[in-house]
This record gives sequence, C-alpha cells and structure tokens, in this order.
Amino acid sequence: MINNIAVLKFGGTSVKNIGRIRHVCELVNKRRREGPVLVVVSAMGDTTDYLVKLAGQAAAEPDKRELDLLLSTGEQISITLVSMVLRTMGVAARSFTAYQVGIFTESIHNKARIVDIKTDTLSKAFEENDVVVVAGFQGVTTGGEITTLGRGGSDTTAVALAAAVGAPVCDIYTDVDGIFTADPNLVRSARRLPRISYEEVVEMARLGAQVIHPRAVELARQHRVVVRVRNTFKPDDQGTIIDGGEQMEIYRTVSGVAVDKEQASVAIVEVPDRPGIAAKIMRAVADQNIVIDMIMQAFHPKSGLNNITFTVARTDLKPTIAVLNQLKDELGATEVEADQDIAKVSLIGAGMVHQPGIAARLFSVLGEAGINIKMIATSEMKLTCVVSRAEADRAAQLIHDAFELGAP
Amino acid sequence: MINNIAVLKFGGTSVKNIGRIRHVCELVNKRRREGPVLVVVSAMGDTTDYLVKLAGQAAAEPDKRELDLLLSTGEQISITLVSMVLRTMGVAARSFTAYQVGIFTESIHNKARIVDIKTDTLSKAFEENDVVVVAGFQGVTTGGEITTLGRGGSDTTAVALAAAVGAPVCDIYTDVDGIFTADPNLVRSARRLPRISYEEVVEMARLGAQVIHPRAVELARQHRVVVRVRNTFKPDDQGTIIDGGEQMEIYRTVSGVAVDKEQASVAIVEVPDRPGIAAKIMRAVADQNIVIDMIMQAFHPKSGLNNITFTVARTDLKPTIAVLNQLKDELGATEVEADQDIAKVSLIGAGMVHQPGIAARLFSVLGEAGINIKMIATSEMKLTCVVSRAEADRAAQLIHDAFELGAP
Repeated sequence: MINNIAVLKFGGTSVKNIGRIRHVCELVNKRRREGPVLVVVSAMGDTTDYLVKLAGQAAAEPDKRELDLLLSTGEQISITLVSMVLRTMGVAARSFTAYQVGIFTESIHNKARIVDIKTDTLSKAFEENDVVVVAGFQGVTTGGEITTLGRGGSDTTAVALAAAVGAPVCDIYTDVDGIFTADPNLVRSARRLPRISYEEVVEMARLGAQVIHPRAVELARQHRVVVRVRNTFKPDDQGTIIDGGEQMEIYRTVSGVAVDKEQASVAIVEVPDRPGIAAKIMRAVADQNIVIDMIMQAFHPKSGLNNITFTVARTDLKPTIAVLNQLKDELGATEVEADQDIAKVSLIGAGMVHQPGIAARLFSVLGEAGINIKMIATSEMKLTCVVSRAEADRAAQLIHDAFELGAP
Repeated sequence: MINNIAVLKFGGTSVKNIGRIRHVCELVNKRRREGPVLVVVSAMGDTTDYLVKLAGQAAAEPDKRELDLLLSTGEQISITLVSMVLRTMGVAARSFTAYQVGIFTESIHNKARIVDIKTDTLSKAFEENDVVVVAGFQGVTTGGEITTLGRGGSDTTAVALAAAVGAPVCDIYTDVDGIFTADPNLVRSARRLPRISYEEVVEMARLGAQVIHPRAVELARQHRVVVRVRNTFKPDDQGTIIDGGEQMEIYRTVSGVAVDKEQASVAIVEVPDRPGIAAKIMRAVADQNIVIDMIMQAFHPKSGLNNITFTVARTDLKPTIAVLNQLKDELGATEVEADQDIAKVSLIGAGMVHQPGIAARLFSVLGEAGINIKMIATSEMKLTCVVSRAEADRAAQLIHDAFELGAP
C-alpha cells in the first residue's frame, strides 16, 4: 500500500449542495499537495431521509435487503459529484463505491459490521490518482449483496479505511469545532479540548456523539487510529485529537460535563425481594428492543420490599410502562411510576478513577446550590447524576466552574 | 436457465411515484401467476434529469465515468422500491443492479453497448423468487466499472435480457397504446397496428421511437426477440407486436405515415461540379457531430453548377450554416441558404418495394391538394417528401386516407 495517505471524512452537512461540495474539494485540493488523499463522504444533506421516506411509502416495513440497496445510492451520488468537482480543479480523482473497493461486511442488513477491507483496488486507484473518493456507510457481502453499516456508518468507514491503509491520522470533518468540555450552548465557558482519549469520548455520549459516532471511536481504539475531529468550515483550526491518551497531561483529571435531556425514568414500586426479579424485569424490557441506561435498586429492610428504578429514552417510555404494567401483578409490585422531568448530568474524565474525592466534591457543589440528586451512577471515568430537567443546565455550569474546565 | 420467463419493461412515467409503482406491481403480480417474471425498470420520472442537472452544477463537462456511476443510482432506486412493494403483496421478489446480474458492456461511458449477459445470478435468483427486478439502462465492464447504455438504454436492457433468458416475448410497457398508422393527435383516423415488422418500426422513426427505441428494435431483430408494446394503464389491451413480419398479411403494403417537424434544410448553391465536393461538405458537417438526414444534389447541365441540399435537426442549423459559410469560398459556391419552414412526411411499409406505383399515387395525392414537394427521398420501405411545415399535417391526413390506413 502507498504510504502516508491522509484519510478525510466529510459528513452530510459538509456536502449538502454543490456549493458546499466545492468548498470541501478546495480543502481536499490543498491537502493533496502534501500527499495522497482518501476522501470518505456521506450522502448529501437530507438524501438519506428522503430515501427512507420513499421506502416508507413503498412498504410499512421495507425489506431490509432492498432498503440497503436503496440507501447506498445516497453515497454513490455524493462521491461522484465530489470526484467531478475535484476533476474540474485539475485534480486526478476517482470515486468508488464500497463494493468496488471491497469493503466486506457481515451478511446483516441495515447495521452490518465491517469484516475486511481489500486494498488492491485502492492501491491501483492511488497509482493513477492523487485523490480517491470512497462511499461511506456502505459495504458488500462476499455474496455480492449491498449492506449498510447503520448509525455512525460513514465515520466507521473512514476509521476502517484509515486502519486498512495504515494512515497516520483520520480526519473527521464536521460542522463543529471539535469536542468541548461542555455544550457551548449551555455553558458559556465551555472550551474545545485539544486532545482526548478514546475512552473519554465514548463516555461523553451525546457530547462526543454529535461529533463522532462512539462505534467509530471504538474501532479507532482497537486499531490505534489517531482521529482528528475538525470543522469543515474552519480548515485551519486544529480541532480535537482523539487517541490513546498516552501523552496526556496527568493533571487533567476531568475533561468534560455532558447533559442528556432525552431520558425518562421508570420505577416499579414495592417489589417483594426475591432473587431473579430484577433480571425478569430487565429481560421483559429488553425483549421490546428497549435499551435501559441507568439502573438503581433501593431495598427497604423494614418492609422487605424493593423499588427498582431505571432510565430509558423518552421515546421508549410508553412501551416500557406497558411492559411493566403487564408484569406488575406477577411480581407483586404495587405501582409503576414514570418521571419525565429528569436530565442526566455527567462528569467525564480518564483520570477520575485515580482521584478520590471527585464525587464528594460534585455532590457538595450541587447540594450547596439546592439541586436535588434523584439518581447516581458511576463508572471508571464517568459520574452521572439525575436531576430535575429544569436544573440540568445550571448543574452543568456549576460543575464546569467547580472543576475549572474552562481554564486551558 | 428456467423456461418461459416473461420479460416486462416499465419506463420512467410508469414508475414515476409510489402510486404508479403500486399499479405496476399489481400488473406484475397478475402476470407472475402464469410463471416467472423478469421486470426491467427505468429511473422514476424525472430522476435522471435531476441527476444530470446535479452533474451540470458540479462540472461544465462532467467526467463521463463519474456521470455513469451517478446516473446508475436512478434505476437502483426504482428497482428496490418495485421489489419492496411486490414483497408487501406477498410476492417473492428481489432486485438486482446490472453489475449484480452481470450485464457486461464495452468500456465506453455514457453509451456503452451490451456485450454479454451472465445468466447464473438470474438462474439462482429465479430458484428463490417468482419475480426478479433488474435495473435498466446500466451495465458493468469486465473491470468492474459502471457504464450506462445511453438513449433507449432500458428498452435495450429488456430486449437483451429477453434474448439471454430465451423469453418467448418481451413486453415493453409504456404510456401509449402501441404503434399507430399515424400520430393520433394529427390524424383522427389513425389506427393502432396489431402487428408490425422490426424494419418498419425503425423506418417509422419518431412515430415508433416515442414507443420503443430503434436500437432496442434492432437488437430484437438480430436475436429474433418478439416485442410487444403495451399500455401500462390498459393492461388488458394487446398493444402492438413487433416481430419478423413473417406471418404478416401480404396485402398490407403500407403501414403508417410519420411526420417530422424537427428538421431544417440547408442548401449550398451553385457549386462547380467537381468530384469530391459533396464528400468534402458532408465531412465538414459530420466533423461537428451533426447528423445529416436527407441529401439531394441537383445538377444544372447548362451552367455546370450543382445545388446541394440536405436536412439536419433544427437545433443543428446554426452550426451547420457556420461550417458551410467557412467552406463557401473554397468551394466556389455563391450562397448558403437555409429553410426552417419544412417538415418531413413519410409513408412506411415493408411491402412497398414490391408494389410499383406507390410513389406515383402519393405524389398525385399531394399534387391534387396543391401541396408542393420540396425534396424527395426513398428507401426500401420508406418514401419521404419534404413539404412546407404548415402543410405537413394535412399531407399526412391525405396520405393516410388515400392508402386507407385507418381501415382495419
């Protein structure tokens, strides 16, 4: 394989019309002066939504295999336009679909995982061209069927290609400046992080996920691909580097505060304390394809009764309540309670596990401000409090200040 | 290969939205009760125009290879939607792109010709499905590059597939009832022809071409594929059968009258009669990619001068005049004259060559009606008169009546 290929990925908003595509191509044209460039693009703007809508008109539950063949046209359109525009700039460029490259996936439709990437087509393409444009989000099975990778697909394609060609870095160009210590819309002093570890990005959930999909980060972590998140419209900015964190300053205990207002909590109240009860509840919910996030079990020794509380996506609240109401009598519980007025506020940091007292400091900050904590969850590098939704932004601001995240 | 596969082709207007696709699928669903069905579809309605427009925004002259990869998405979208809708009707259906099937073409972009069609994928597909939906208009080179077939591409795909699978008949579903003895909008007594030969359809030019592309007819002729042109929206109508004409009634000398108002004539006046002059003129025009239709050379023995007159598409008139003006002095001609006020009226019939007197009858019909004939051209099964544009429709009506084409 040719050495030193730069991998650049551009999302749908970066290529949503020909004007934007032209901007992207100017950026690519500059970069290719330093060496060969592999460009990965998503479908233009709303193309995928439009195709999904068409499929929805065709069938209430569109056949998954046909849906993939349909959706893959979105990226096929954008790669050809990018290549055409590059060629008007005198750049030797060629576009390739995933099946043309040989991005092989599992035989699972709508959410296939990449199994293998052939590099002979790419090698040949780079012998004849300075820029090779590859369709993100799609793959092909060994049987020749077109698959799509599901959510975060284009990011995943870019990282996988970077790993396959041994690229020193994978640039994910998007419409934000990088990964921040908090949502700049909520916390004024939020600061772009110049560097962050794979693990921290994943823990940052939505804060990181609006920039790069956790699945792509996980792939990057496995293959030690250095990822750089950059703003398409500020090409000189350095963005945020995501890597193994080996060279990170030891003093940076915490790296960001994330707020998630898309959850609701459900409680099943006064369940007799018998073994296997929690598992039964969780399985019934999971059977409906509902993902459970935080779980809390509170045991009252006096009554011998449990309250089991957990959070789910707000959109899953109705079916969750339905499942629990069905189970209620069988379990001997007295009630099912739902709370939509919640938000998760999380403090994330790779160094947290080595630093005692972080949790105490966080709780006291919230306590002094009169903010009631409804639930708590902890992991190695994340500390999450559930608070009233109305207080979430203020809580994030207070935590951001208390841990001096705005200071460089 | 599985026997007795019906090949059904649907054009862009037949699948222009999901409602129409549903209608097409109901028709296919009925047909598959009689046996396996191979469906060929074009891109939905204006999709190809939209993609061409996008390409035009990307580059003044879009790269041809990239353009093919772009345009091929149009049919890829329509085949998946047709397959999805068929599946909602409980039909075992699967869609395939040209590269998935193995429709191999020359390595020429935008107008590739089909070289070979593999049938193993199709055989396998028909083992598992009752209906196989294949993208028209597209192909693949042995090197894995996507090509498109150019004008008449989807018709050509359908006929080629019919030949490859040995289908007894290839149904071209469109938005007209079949091939008529004249344009029903011009000649009220125009009648649908139940049967016509390959050669006559080609000679009918626009009259036939608005129904099926001459290229597909020529392919059908070569491979002796019986083609049936039918109206998608009148599925019980029998349309027009196009075949070798072996069983045609001997008495049907003439089969139709065609009018073409899209031509203009150009004359280069008083050219000295030297060998090679006509060739020189024709080559100069052809070098501009302008197609010359009728050519007439009139020699005046007295002066030893020639007038050379020919017709071109009206859209090519300007560049044609420019070329001739450049040549004028070199040739020693006195003038270049153009006439936009013309129309071609043609009488077509496979039996014409065996029937003397047809031309005389036609000329006298026009002469009696006071219609002046500006140019005449004849071929084995076609007799064309150039008349004033304003008189073309009346001429067609008179000829249609005189030859009793409206009578069954």
